[in-house]
Amino acid sequence: MPEPIVISIDAMGGDHGPSVVVPGLALGVETWRARGVSFLVHGDQARIEAEMARYPALRPLCEIRHTELVIGGDEKPAQAMRRGKGSSLWNAVEAIREGRAQAAVSSGNTGALMAISKLILRMVTPDLERPAIVVSWPTSRGFTTVLDVGANIDCDAERLVDFAIMGEAYHRAVHGANRPTIGLLNVGAEEQKGRDDVKEAHRLLTEGGLNLNYKGFVEGDDIGKGSVDVIVTDGFTGNVALKTAEGVARFVSAELRAALTSSLVSKIGAFIAQGALRRLRERITPGGGGPLLGLNGIVVKSHGGGDAKGFAHAVGVAADLAQSAFASEIRRNLEQLTAALSEGEAEVAAVASEHKE
Amino acid sequence: MPEPIVISIDAMGGDHGPSVVVPGLALGVETWRARGVSFLVHGDQARIEAEMARYPALRPLCEIRHTELVIGGDEKPAQAMRRGKGSSLWNAVEAIREGRAQAAVSSGNTGALMAISKLILRMVTPDLERPAIVVSWPTSRGFTTVLDVGANIDCDAERLVDFAIMGEAYHRAVHGANRPTIGLLNVGAEEQKGRDDVKEAHRLLTEGGLNLNYKGFVEGDDIGKGSVDVIVTDGFTGNVALKTAEGVARFVSAELRAALTSSLVSKIGAFIAQGALRRLRERITPGGGGPLLGLNGIVVKSHGGGDAKGFAHAVGVAADLAQSAFASEIRRNLEQLTAALSEGEAEVAAVASEHKE
Repeated sequence: MPEPIVISIDAMGGDHGPSVVVPGLALGVETWRARGVSFLVHGDQARIEAEMARYPALRPLCEIRHTELVIGGDEKPAQAMRRGKGSSLWNAVEAIREGRAQAAVSSGNTGALMAISKLILRMVTPDLERPAIVVSWPTSRGFTTVLDVGANIDCDAERLVDFAIMGEAYHRAVHGANRPTIGLLNVGAEEQKGRDDVKEAHRLLTEGGLNLNYKGFVEGDDIGKGSVDVIVTDGFTGNVALKTAEGVARFVSAELRAALTSSLVSKIGAFIAQGALRRLRERITPGGGGPLLGLNGIVVKSHGGGDAKGFAHAVGVAADLAQSAFASEIRRNLEQLTAALSEGEAEVAAVASEHKE
Repeated sequence: MPEPIVISIDAMGGDHGPSVVVPGLALGVETWRARGVSFLVHGDQARIEAEMARYPALRPLCEIRHTELVIGGDEKPAQAMRRGKGSSLWNAVEAIREGRAQAAVSSGNTGALMAISKLILRMVTPDLERPAIVVSWPTSRGFTTVLDVGANIDCDAERLVDFAIMGEAYHRAVHGANRPTIGLLNVGAEEQKGRDDVKEAHRLLTEGGLNLNYKGFVEGDDIGKGSVDVIVTDGFTGNVALKTAEGVARFVSAELRAALTSSLVSKIGAFIAQGALRRLRERITPGGGGPLLGLNGIVVKSHGGGDAKGFAHAVGVAADLAQSAFASEIRRNLEQLTAALSEGEAEVAAVASEHKE
């Protein structure tokens, strides 16, 4: 059995609070027990107890921490930070800092969760503006991990390398790949092409002595091909790529509907095709939730409008991350990156002092 | 009848040279005559004459300019510029500069066509690195013009505004919209979101006094929705978005094939669905060719592997642009932009000198 862990749960987040969260926890109860996972459940004790009464097998795995304060789904991050202390979301994250839990899961509002997690746990590297958002992009070979898809709009070369380090550790922990391959999103595969920050990140990934299976540049169509396991890009480009893909999936769906409704046979075909497309859209949309990468601690966002199965999935991701070498791998590679960068600076300084002499 | 024009044709470009170019010209012969379009056809006179013998109605519209020099499909731009003088591609563009033609069409290699066009015609604005590549993206409402999809990797705010000006004039001339709407690609619709260059371009488009129907920020999924007629972005983001879309279309196609081959009914559905997806892929890929925007002159790239119909389409685009106010609209708006920018500089200078006093 893996090392026992405690996962801290915000029971009040999302559209349905405990009535989705508790059934979600109950869904995986056999798995949690087998894996040594137990829960600290934060929120309205009476409502949580009422839901738990239906799942006697779950109750012994849970310790409930009562609070009445809840952060609303539409509260601005700044407001949530000001008045959120003691809320179920806040307490779920705080439990990590206090060492009482090894991971937290919330389906509360993303902006508030990001801001409060950053405030309480701090970023693993001080230059990261906010946690990176990662999606598992469906491909014909499985899933490609793509990050950042929207949190960090301006990224220099070092931030891109940070994402490579975090995305690789995430992909290994969650998708079980031994040596995940990494690609850097660019406009061509040749070394001389692309933006300067991307070329500099390429150099760092190639020469920085990091323990990564880096494969070089990839292009937009590699995202869907599964050419590599992890694709790294800045939050601006990643967000545009993700939303463009959603738009294309929706457009294809509408075109097919139009093309396929002319006869009974076509209608049946359309019905089947619609199912395939809906699955695609569901898979491509980061709604199922994902971790906020780059924090000193494991925080997983579950989809606010999701169902019990979605919440159970998010808890599973949190357990995968907490029971793997995820955190230590990131720390080791970030240290290596810092060393490589200061070596580079030392070289520059040496050259500069030679010129002075 | 619109004002008569001459279009300069590179008859030797593409995979098939005159055997595709001449039938392409012949396909539209009624249209060309009705529109007052005639041709200067550059290339191997004997081969061109041999092809034209099959189209007696086309011959009177054409003047052939013999040359034996041809730029290869895989020649590097630098090489093409060095040894390309006097080639069919070179001469086709040169005819514009000499005032003997109002537009040029070539299916020769894109890099060579860009480099030679820039060398001969120069850019309308000196800061533009190279001509912008534009695609007509299929949406449920028709087509959205998207640029730049790959030529200009690093774009500051002014370049983005240049693209807005050129894309709007292009969309009006080719798709016949009266006041095309324009959107700036960003990661959210709110003014405070996004990269600094994009926010600055937003300010210029809003306050620059340009004669444009600018609608503000759009997101990746607006590309496929047709929310606006023209979407402006830098060549890095545009290239990633385009290739991501191609990848998604390919993935959806493969998923459907897998899902739909289980029964006869499904097979029929799959057959129909495949047709719809193939059309989508064809429409989304910029293979049909498009203009190189930002040159002092109209140059249209036709797909190197395209057929006669594709070449005829490219010639139609060239005629649309040459017989509209395309060039003068771009010039007027660029002058307005320059005026707005120097006003801005004057304001800065005034504030600076006030502080000195």
